[in-house]
Amino acid sequence: MIPVGELLERLTDGDVRALARAISLAEDQGAAAIELLRSAFPHTGRASIIGLTGPPGAGKSSLVDRLVTANRAAGRKVGVIAVDPSSTYSGGAILGDRVRMQEHAGDEGVFIRSMATRGHLGGLSRSTNDAIDLMDAAGYDPVLVETVGVGQDEIDIVRTADVVAVVLVPGMGDDIQAIKAGILEIADLFVINKADRVGADRLQSELDYMLSLVGPGDRPKPPILRTVAVRGDGVAELQQQLEARTAQSADPSNVTRRRERARARFLDLLRDRLIRSAVEGMADGELERIVASIAAHETDPYSAVDRALHGEEDA
Amino acid sequence: MIPVGELLERLTDGDVRALARAISLAEDQGAAAIELLRSAFPHTGRASIIGLTGPPGAGKSSLVDRLVTANRAAGRKVGVIAVDPSSTYSGGAILGDRVRMQEHAGDEGVFIRSMATRGHLGGLSRSTNDAIDLMDAAGYDPVLVETVGVGQDEIDIVRTADVVAVVLVPGMGDDIQAIKAGILEIADLFVINKADRVGADRLQSELDYMLSLVGPGDRPKPPILRTVAVRGDGVAELQQQLEARTAQSADPSNVTRRRERARARFLDLLRDRLIRSAVEGMADGELERIVASIAAHETDPYSAVDRALHGEEDA
Repeated sequence: MIPVGELLERLTDGDVRALARAISLAEDQGAAAIELLRSAFPHTGRASIIGLTGPPGAGKSSLVDRLVTANRAAGRKVGVIAVDPSSTYSGGAILGDRVRMQEHAGDEGVFIRSMATRGHLGGLSRSTNDAIDLMDAAGYDPVLVETVGVGQDEIDIVRTADVVAVVLVPGMGDDIQAIKAGILEIADLFVINKADRVGADRLQSELDYMLSLVGPGDRPKPPILRTVAVRGDGVAELQQQLEARTAQSADPSNVTRRRERARARFLDLLRDRLIRSAVEGMADGELERIVASIAAHETDPYSAVDRALHGEEDA
Repeated sequence: MIPVGELLERLTDGDVRALARAISLAEDQGAAAIELLRSAFPHTGRASIIGLTGPPGAGKSSLVDRLVTANRAAGRKVGVIAVDPSSTYSGGAILGDRVRMQEHAGDEGVFIRSMATRGHLGGLSRSTNDAIDLMDAAGYDPVLVETVGVGQDEIDIVRTADVVAVVLVPGMGDDIQAIKAGILEIADLFVINKADRVGADRLQSELDYMLSLVGPGDRPKPPILRTVAVRGDGVAELQQQLEARTAQSADPSNVTRRRERARARFLDLLRDRLIRSAVEGMADGELERIVASIAAHETDPYSAVDRALHGEEDA
């Protein structure tokens, strides 16, 4: 195994294989991983982090591929993290990776990584942030973080990016619930992709209406862009908007965002560490005994937690 | 305020207002809430828990409404919990509740509750399980838990139900990623809703193909049903399948499921309690100082956690 110091040196020198190895190493959270992440941290903070989220089928991957091409044309090294919390396969979403790697295969200026597995004790948000740091330390800028889905996890992962684009598509369904409050609140801009489809105008009106309900708040009203990613339509304008927003790094809203990201990372890590050491500190078979007792309705979960924490017999 | 003992008595007597009050009380996790949940626990374990999940726009709400009607016709009291993790509005998804309450308004045998907010220290899974317990104690059986979205949170919430139905809809998008590995793994049965739409056959073939990739595993291959919820087509068969599966409560897979649910509840509560007491135990302003130091790239998150846990100056 390569010593951590050497791995970090190779990584900051732009060695793609070192970066891939470092991200895999970080996932296991062993002592070497933590040493690596600590020593990489001073090299971070330069990359712009661009979050893209939206429902499955909205064409986020095609859009990300177009943005990668646009950034490459401008001479930038681009990192892509595709987060798929609902997949339990390690190493990436089914089929997804293989298809995506082909397009930019052989281009060392593009680094694509899928994050799919989540341990039973949490951690997808943590491993995504670790991967962002490592790409950042390796000189990738921007780092595009794409989440598949519209759940709370996906929102938590992208909401602290420097800029968040929410990608929607016409004809997602009739019910207004398809456009969710949580998503409206995190979006810096909306993209109506596949905008050549029937229903684009209707989706835009619905969005305008939803945004008017939410009210002004403390963020400027997010613009609504239209794209047809497979043809490249509208991608230049999207790229321009994303650049304009990430360039304002001294902007108070960006400072707030980076602080929110720091807070979320700290609390995530603290939570992981606490539950891990609590479970590891239990006697052999103790967790199974507690679980069986709750499942058998002999102990309620609240009393079980009290006893696990304080060893109380009568909580 | 009503004493906890009296509230519990009213609730187990079937007082709808007491149930509503109890669920609201449980959400704040105060001392009275925990006393209530503890004393309600021995009255639980009778209700069948039916999980329904799927992407926005699949028509889950219409399907749930039909299942409510079918259960009412069979003389059962039905609880419904609509979980929407991506909404940050308390009290329910936008517009959703008002629309849904109308249909079964005035029927005390139907209790509908939306769970939408999640505190910064976690808890949507916890409050959903608490609400299931309280409905169960109040004699509602089955309890239908509907989650909006396809993220990890939604999956975590429904995966330990006694039976899990995944609702899909034709024409969700072209990419195969729309049908996710995580969802394939938790489904006891699939429902293709809006099955009169173009693309139902194609969706069925795609599902068959995906299921063949996943392989047999330890669960029987989930059946694929077709419904048109707005017209009621296929609902009787779905109801029959759900009943057949929840009836097998002595079935080993159901025992496993209940144990998984107990485990998830215990670990969730333990995690919440640990992070809460860690944050509360910090000196005034300490959390903000740590966050600022990470955001300024002066301290890496790993060292910050070490210091918070051990007070180490040089981690």
